[in-house]
Amino acid sequence: MTQIGETSLLARARGGDKRAIARLLTVVENEEPGAADAIRELYPQTGRARVIGVTGPPGGGKSTLVNRLAGAYREKGERVAVVAVDPSSPFSGGALLGDRIRMQERSLDEGLFIRSMASRGHAGGLARTTSRVVNVLDAIGYGVVLVETVGVGQEEVEVIRVVDSVALVTVPGLGDDIQAIKAGVLEIADVLVVNKADRPGADETARDLAQMLTLGKLRTEWKPPIIRTVAATGENVPQLVDALERHRTWAIESGERERRRRDAARADVEDLLREALVRRLRDHIGPTAVDRAVARVADRDIDPYTAVEELLRQ
Amino acid sequence: MTQIGETSLLARARGGDKRAIARLLTVVENEEPGAADAIRELYPQTGRARVIGVTGPPGGGKSTLVNRLAGAYREKGERVAVVAVDPSSPFSGGALLGDRIRMQERSLDEGLFIRSMASRGHAGGLARTTSRVVNVLDAIGYGVVLVETVGVGQEEVEVIRVVDSVALVTVPGLGDDIQAIKAGVLEIADVLVVNKADRPGADETARDLAQMLTLGKLRTEWKPPIIRTVAATGENVPQLVDALERHRTWAIESGERERRRRDAARADVEDLLREALVRRLRDHIGPTAVDRAVARVADRDIDPYTAVEELLRQ
Repeated sequence: MTQIGETSLLARARGGDKRAIARLLTVVENEEPGAADAIRELYPQTGRARVIGVTGPPGGGKSTLVNRLAGAYREKGERVAVVAVDPSSPFSGGALLGDRIRMQERSLDEGLFIRSMASRGHAGGLARTTSRVVNVLDAIGYGVVLVETVGVGQEEVEVIRVVDSVALVTVPGLGDDIQAIKAGVLEIADVLVVNKADRPGADETARDLAQMLTLGKLRTEWKPPIIRTVAATGENVPQLVDALERHRTWAIESGERERRRRDAARADVEDLLREALVRRLRDHIGPTAVDRAVARVADRDIDPYTAVEELLRQ
Repeated sequence: MTQIGETSLLARARGGDKRAIARLLTVVENEEPGAADAIRELYPQTGRARVIGVTGPPGGGKSTLVNRLAGAYREKGERVAVVAVDPSSPFSGGALLGDRIRMQERSLDEGLFIRSMASRGHAGGLARTTSRVVNVLDAIGYGVVLVETVGVGQEEVEVIRVVDSVALVTVPGLGDDIQAIKAGVLEIADVLVVNKADRPGADETARDLAQMLTLGKLRTEWKPPIIRTVAATGENVPQLVDALERHRTWAIESGERERRRRDAARADVEDLLREALVRRLRDHIGPTAVDRAVARVADRDIDPYTAVEELLRQ
């Protein structure tokens, strides 16, 4: 191996140097020069990690649960990476981001890597960025990658497409909108978690979830188990790990994992394709043509459909 | 006017026929045949409505507040449309959707129109669909369009780009993740609402918000006022309406409304452009070429960047 090879960012990241890993992820997140080359080189080594998503409405104790899961997989001897997709803004710098960084600094565990991603300002959108970050962590040898998302919107559903198993975390008594939230993401859940299960109302929440499952049409023959946990104390976390492992085994045997990975690949390729085509068009007709069209649409001179037709004719 | 013109969907919608409006919105939402033509015809009449967004984390009483705002603007003699962007799924059929439909049916008010949109399965993405629905309601004569979003993710931020003024609704004591949520959407808020202000902790929440505002960097010289409401009783709803009107006046005078509308037009044109380009490429190289590339990426034969390069060479 050459001197450059040995000291390259990629080589150091592969060697487990956390600062090099963090820098590599930043290159990939921001699509800095070298990002595509790094992915090209790492991609053949991807597909080995078990990638687990943890999602659900705010206030469910997801972060604590993810920390517990990370600990449980560390005890099994796995190298574990946590990718926390957090809201952030120029206003606050991101509250969760700060917490995570402090947690990372406290951790002397060489086999645990934590990455926080702000939910805005990614060159290629959050779903693609998350996919790339997971690709890198997978390729450099993290056997378990935990992806935690805050929020319950469509974008979180897109983000979660990169994972093999999804745990949906709810808690007793989250308020009026909880029914709607559960409905929105229930269909992507492989394991349902009622966290803070020592609170009043846990039985009702578990019963509601079970009823929604029987009412609904399952996508596959997998029936999502309902696990009650108390992340703060670690209660029933081993049961959650078992449920995730059962889902993994089923997904591999049934071909479901393969199907999901193909869907994720499709979303990824189509997304890159769209972007490349727009870049080509812009190079071809010049940026001012697009600006002029936008101004005319804003002024209600022409409608957006006509604007696009005119741009394509140029 | 010809017989066809008078009885056409567009003509009936313009005449205030609610079933025709609902049908027209469905055509536009699903991009059924005729959708682009309808927008082409309606677009020159858009840009007149005041479009107000109401967003914030679940459990904040947003729906009740939106109903109050609708009532307040109705009293001022405005025709009001409510667009509720609700999570939904095949599992439940959408809890909020059902509520809204019942509310609609109960309403004998000819000047009030309510539309629920599920947050998934739109041909062109939720932001574009919302933009189209608002365009239609604006063009056919609703002077006020209230857009309510459930959730706090990036997609809601995209949805909210179509509005002129954004009210961010929080409540006292929403739990652990509230800091992060507020940070994520605080910068898009023009008016901050502490709803359920009769609950304990309202003072602290208002103080926290004020502090976050002083800490952060404002995008413009507009300083978002903080309004405490009790939507259930209607308390302080007139003050909220006043604050929204003050923002509207400022936005028009300062050029901020124009800037936002230009940004929304840009997002819209670029989005349609991307889609048209991909359709052209697919027609040109055939769908199986894309499928083959996707399969090879899923199998880790090639990376996504190489796959896209190969597709573009064809």
